[in-house]
Amino acid sequence: MASAAKVAVESIAKRIKPLFDRVLVEKAEPIARSKGGLYIPEKAQGRVVHGTIVATGPGARNEQGANIPVSVSVGDSVLLPEYGGTKIELDAKDYFLYRENDILAKLQD
Amino acid sequence: MASAAKVAVESIAKRIKPLFDRVLVEKAEPIARSKGGLYIPEKAQGRVVHGTIVATGPGARNEQGANIPVSVSVGDSVLLPEYGGTKIELDAKDYFLYRENDILAKLQD
Amino acid sequence: MASAAKVAVESIAKRIKPLFDRVLVEKAEPIARSKGGLYIPEKAQGRVVHGTIVATGPGARNEQGANIPVSVSVGDSVLLPEYGGTKIELDAKDYFLYRENDILAKLQD
Amino acid sequence: MASAAKVAVESIAKRIKPLFDRVLVEKAEPIARSKGGLYIPEKAQGRVVHGTIVATGPGARNEQGANIPVSVSVGDSVLLPEYGGTKIELDAKDYFLYRENDILAKLQD
Amino acid sequence: MASAAKVAVESIAKRIKPLFDRVLVEKAEPIARSKGGLYIPEKAQGRVVHGTIVATGPGARNEQGANIPVSVSVGDSVLLPEYGGTKIELDAKDYFLYRENDILAKLQD
Amino acid sequence: MASAAKVAVESIAKRIKPLFDRVLVEKAEPIARSKGGLYIPEKAQGRVVHGTIVATGPGARNEQGANIPVSVSVGDSVLLPEYGGTKIELDAKDYFLYRENDILAKLQD
Amino acid sequence: MASAAKVAVESIAKRIKPLFDRVLVEKAEPIARSKGGLYIPEKAQGRVVHGTIVATGPGARNEQGANIPVSVSVGDSVLLPEYGGTKIELDAKDYFLYRENDILAKLQD
Repeated sequence: MASAAKVAVESIAKRIKPLFDRVLVEKAEPIARSKGGLYIPEKAQGRVVHGTIVATGPGARNEQGANIPVSVSVGDSVLLPEYGGTKIELDAKDYFLYRENDILAKLQD
Repeated sequence: MASAAKVAVESIAKRIKPLFDRVLVEKAEPIARSKGGLYIPEKAQGRVVHGTIVATGPGARNEQGANIPVSVSVGDSVLLPEYGGTKIELDAKDYFLYRENDILAKLQD
Repeated sequence: MASAAKVAVESIAKRIKPLFDRVLVEKAEPIARSKGGLYIPEKAQGRVVHGTIVATGPGARNEQGANIPVSVSVGDSVLLPEYGGTKIELDAKDYFLYRENDILAKLQD
Repeated sequence: MASAAKVAVESIAKRIKPLFDRVLVEKAEPIARSKGGLYIPEKAQGRVVHGTIVATGPGARNEQGANIPVSVSVGDSVLLPEYGGTKIELDAKDYFLYRENDILAKLQD
Repeated sequence: MASAAKVAVESIAKRIKPLFDRVLVEKAEPIARSKGGLYIPEKAQGRVVHGTIVATGPGARNEQGANIPVSVSVGDSVLLPEYGGTKIELDAKDYFLYRENDILAKLQD
Repeated sequence: MASAAKVAVESIAKRIKPLFDRVLVEKAEPIARSKGGLYIPEKAQGRVVHGTIVATGPGARNEQGANIPVSVSVGDSVLLPEYGGTKIELDAKDYFLYRENDILAKLQD
Repeated sequence: MASAAKVAVESIAKRIKPLFDRVLVEKAEPIARSKGGLYIPEKAQGRVVHGTIVATGPGARNEQGANIPVSVSVGDSVLLPEYGGTKIELDAKDYFLYRENDILAKLQD
């Protein structure tokens, strides 16, 4: 990620604290090759999209009130369902809030 | 928040005690820049709104009857879903009761 | 509350024992200023109403059969959703049975 | 309750053992004054009815298989929702089986 | 129950082992007087029916895998809702499988 | 069961391992007399069918991750609801996967 | 599986980490004989399909936050319901994400 973009993301992450098991995601532009070098043809981009985790909440709360940490971290590249997520525009960029349970998979190099 | 407004909010907070995991929110006027300096363009204001926590309930109750404290506090600046919330007009101002779980994120300076 | 009305309410409270987490509420007449001095303009009265707790049940029951005491008490001034509640006319007055969880907030002086 | 009617009710109670948290209720004729002397005007009778508990089940069962005793007893005068309940005609009289949780309140002298 | 019929029922009971909390019921012919001498007029027979338990399952299973014994036994006379139950014809007779929770009450002499 | 058929079933059982609380069933041809000698007239065969358990899964998983063994075994003759079950054709024969909880009863000699 | 295909699958498995109880599956081409030698006629292929597990998530999370390992492993041949699963195209091949609970059975040699 270019350093200017990185700075912008970090500043967003500092200011937006998702609640519970929500995570804030910046969707990647639909390019042919993902971070891990996976060639994701156009059609897939229509069905499943990928993006980067920008900020994470403390996790869902169990019956005793303890938070169960989310299993993704800031910077992770992830696969997202096409639909779902709450759109938030910050500093003129789209971000999306997802529940952790809706994140499909992590993409690793 | 201007001191007159602050006084009004504090007086509301003293008189309204939300029950369970409800929180009372004063929605911010749709301005371009949020408290944390985040530029929230018009369109976002249509989809996600932000506001300030005015009063909080004791928290949801678990099976043993204990309250699980809410994870937002009076004065927090928060992101809210566009829909939902019960409108209450007090002293000719709109306030909204939300369940804690519907609050999307905290906005921090 | 005028003493005659108080006596009437107390007599109702002695004779009606709501079950589980139900509470019996006497809705306040839609006046501009609530007990706590909050000016509740007409429009709010259409959306959210306030009233006084007349009698309370022992509370919801958990898996072990123990009652979890309700968090409102007789005499509390409360905010109620516009809809919901079971209407009961006793001694030619309207009372309403609500589940504790539907009571929005307590109004305190 | 007149002694003949009492005998009839007792005989029913001996022969009908509701299961789980069901209770058998004999609905009162819509009279203006309930047992506790509460004047229940006609209109209320259309919305909420009252009756007497004739027989009770052992209570709902929890995860361990133990019954949680019901919180009403034979002879209690109770308030019932207008709808619901399974009608059973025994000895040419109408009785109604309700789940304990649907009973609104107890009416006490 | 006539001895021939008894033998038939016992033979069925030996061969059919309902699973979980199911119970096998033989519906009684709609006669005016039930086993307990209760006069069940025609109309009731249309709404609630009664029958005899022919076989019982081991009971529902809880989280630990233990069965919670059913609260009715073979030979019990019971009240059944008009609808529900899975019809099984065995030896040219109708039997019905009910979940224990759907059995309304036991009829006792 | 004829030995050739038995061999075929055993071979299927070795190769198909149902997951969780699923069981694999071979439906019996609709004959008048079941294994236990029960005469199951045509009509019943249309509503409830019977068959033989060919393979069983390890059982449903509880909160701790332990499997709760299913209560039917390979070779058991069982009663099945008319509808439900996932059809699988193996070696040109129909088999059906059911959840254990949908199996109505065991048929015993 | 031909070694080139195997290498491709392994590379996918390294880069895609399904979350929770999701598993990534490569559906087998609809051939007449499955890995275990089971003849799966055309019709079955229309209703139930089989495939190979390519990657598995850490498992569903219980109330304490612990993952409950999934009961299938990479390389397992499995039976899948015809519908369901989220399609993902990677390196121009179709893969499908299923929840563990939707996998019908394992096919063993």
